[in-house]
Amino acid sequence: MNIHQLANEIKTKKSYLCVGLDTEFSKIPKHLQANKNAIVDFNKAIIDATLPYCVSYKINTAFYEVLGSKGWDIMQETFDYIPNTHFKIADAKRGDIGNTSSQYAKAFFETLNADAITVAPYMGEDSIAPFLAYENKTTIVLALTSNNGAKDFEMLTTNGSYLYEEVIKKVSSWGTEGNLMFVVGATQTQELQNIRKLIPNHFLLVPGVGFQGGSLADVSTFGLTQSKSGVLINASRAIIYASEGENFATEAAAIAQQYVAEMQAYL
Amino acid sequence: MNIHQLANEIKTKKSYLCVGLDTEFSKIPKHLQANKNAIVDFNKAIIDATLPYCVSYKINTAFYEVLGSKGWDIMQETFDYIPNTHFKIADAKRGDIGNTSSQYAKAFFETLNADAITVAPYMGEDSIAPFLAYENKTTIVLALTSNNGAKDFEMLTTNGSYLYEEVIKKVSSWGTEGNLMFVVGATQTQELQNIRKLIPNHFLLVPGVGFQGGSLADVSTFGLTQSKSGVLINASRAIIYASEGENFATEAAAIAQQYVAEMQAYL
Repeated sequence: MNIHQLANEIKTKKSYLCVGLDTEFSKIPKHLQANKNAIVDFNKAIIDATLPYCVSYKINTAFYEVLGSKGWDIMQETFDYIPNTHFKIADAKRGDIGNTSSQYAKAFFETLNADAITVAPYMGEDSIAPFLAYENKTTIVLALTSNNGAKDFEMLTTNGSYLYEEVIKKVSSWGTEGNLMFVVGATQTQELQNIRKLIPNHFLLVPGVGFQGGSLADVSTFGLTQSKSGVLINASRAIIYASEGENFATEAAAIAQQYVAEMQAYL
Repeated sequence: MNIHQLANEIKTKKSYLCVGLDTEFSKIPKHLQANKNAIVDFNKAIIDATLPYCVSYKINTAFYEVLGSKGWDIMQETFDYIPNTHFKIADAKRGDIGNTSSQYAKAFFETLNADAITVAPYMGEDSIAPFLAYENKTTIVLALTSNNGAKDFEMLTTNGSYLYEEVIKKVSSWGTEGNLMFVVGATQTQELQNIRKLIPNHFLLVPGVGFQGGSLADVSTFGLTQSKSGVLINASRAIIYASEGENFATEAAAIAQQYVAEMQAYL
């Protein structure tokens, strides 16, 4: 699925929710932990339950790499299980010299068959270009993240603007609205109006709603484009760990449904 | 192995060479490609041949992730094969919000048992702190990289200095000379004197000698500390692909030996 198709799904479904599968073994319900493929079983149950409400799933690679090669099998199995009606994001935050970024692009766009990958901008154009070279895949570049550390470098002033603004200006000249998104944390709503001046139409991937305290209302008000699109809001822990009981999947669906009900007021 | 022990190895061995195992299946000698574990066999042969000359090995994760879970098995097997006399670096360039960076730190420091990992600084302090929390492990933060893209953001001016200088200044206040290194590309020798003013003693991991055109002489002249230490020079392709023939390992050793012979003139 590419950005254009994602935009159509958002319009049809009246949802811009992405469910983050940051699955940790120790946090999944006790009754599942004895299963041979406990994390896969958990992910599949969450996917089955939330499919009607979300348009995208995001897998954060860290939570799988911690399990070594088995984690990569689980990640592959989870990606394979997500139907093509949903936009599949590998939240990997990769980036290296061109020769190496090409290998990362191949790993995530071909081996794992993700639709999109998050990329760190620090190393500049040739570290991002190999991802953008894939037609019909999406490169999602970190701009202004949701964490406290965002102030350390992203908010430094350079050329009369913040570093994250320089990132948005330069990177947006390397890709198009059709193959490039930016990450903007949900806790950064005071900057969202400013970001929309720089890139009125680019899609934003917005993590940090829920557990990290970002406001769905503010993100929607300041982040949605004039055509009521261009935002993908991710919630991870607030949805997937909604309940520790046997009802975890229905509770996850209930939270997802709440988000979507609120979203429909902004569309 | 920690930084202190690495410094001792450099002193004893009179070498500050790191061999980069950026192994691609298509580039290993044809006679090995039919082997069941061709890449592991290749890596082991390179390690056996170069052990006397280098003090460290660096595995770039991209070249293994492209193979999916099998790549992680190969990476694990390669790390396990490197003896504890050598400093094991996972060149992974990770970095995420604290909760997630903790998972990456666990993945590389515990699951893979690497001594060190490279980390991207863009997301700031809480993205780096979980790596620094490991005693006796080493966090290697990107400062000024060897690629053309380094000019895009790393060389932007902020607070009257380059962004990469701000990174060095801030990050060095979060860690110590005993648990923190910086990446400085070998093509950036004009900045090395400046970097040594900011951090006279911190170890630098310097990739980009050989294939990327960096000068061993310049890096050594401007990078070594007053006590003739503090630099780890990485060469990958120039060593591991020194020959496509059956003599690939002895040719790799010969190139490694050449580097070390040159290094001994600067120590």
